[in-house]
Amino acid sequence: METADKLAAVDRYIEAFEKADLGMIRALYADDAVVEDPVGTDPHRGIEAICAFYEGALGAGAKLALSGTPRCAGNAVAFPFQVILPGMKMDVIDVFEFNDAGKVVSMRAYWGPENAIPG
Amino acid sequence: METADKLAAVDRYIEAFEKADLGMIRALYADDAVVEDPVGTDPHRGIEAICAFYEGALGAGAKLALSGTPRCAGNAVAFPFQVILPGMKMDVIDVFEFNDAGKVVSMRAYWGPENAIPG
Repeated sequence: METADKLAAVDRYIEAFEKADLGMIRALYADDAVVEDPVGTDPHRGIEAICAFYEGALGAGAKLALSGTPRCAGNAVAFPFQVILPGMKMDVIDVFEFNDAGKVVSMRAYWGPENAIPG
Repeated sequence: METADKLAAVDRYIEAFEKADLGMIRALYADDAVVEDPVGTDPHRGIEAICAFYEGALGAGAKLALSGTPRCAGNAVAFPFQVILPGMKMDVIDVFEFNDAGKVVSMRAYWGPENAIPG
């Protein structure tokens, strides 16, 4: 998978939150993808469980803003960003892994309570 | 493993580069650790192969500077930083995974050519 395609997937992910567009999220993921958010919690397995998870985040009005350059390596991209919610922000790093069809098969989100920023 | 211990490991890692101290790097890793830097390349398996890898980086005078807050989750920490070398910088995200003894068992580094910054 080309670097440009991985970067485009990150852009579409951020745009999906901006537009609260669950269809855009669904289009990014493989049917058998696994989302672990945050790492260390029970993963969401399969596209329906994943969409249910994102429906909650989009419904809460979460927006994303990159806080550094995405880093592409192998079949993956890691990118730092802030989740912006009413009254708080959260520093997060997501790692997407892609399959040969260019769909995200694994998303792992790194964040903890100490990454929350009031306001 | 406590969040404070994971953050301390990141601090020691940066200090090890600052001091070009291979012993500090060795002390961070488990004997059977695996380092994949960048992701998608052949991993360095075991502490001796890992130390040989870092010996090259330290010998080249590489220094590290955090470019955002480390994100702790589960048994891992992901952190964004710049590698600073004479004449260039590189944006990187590393992910450390720890074993129960508090040693790093897996390091995966995300970066690509597009993350290089001249000067």
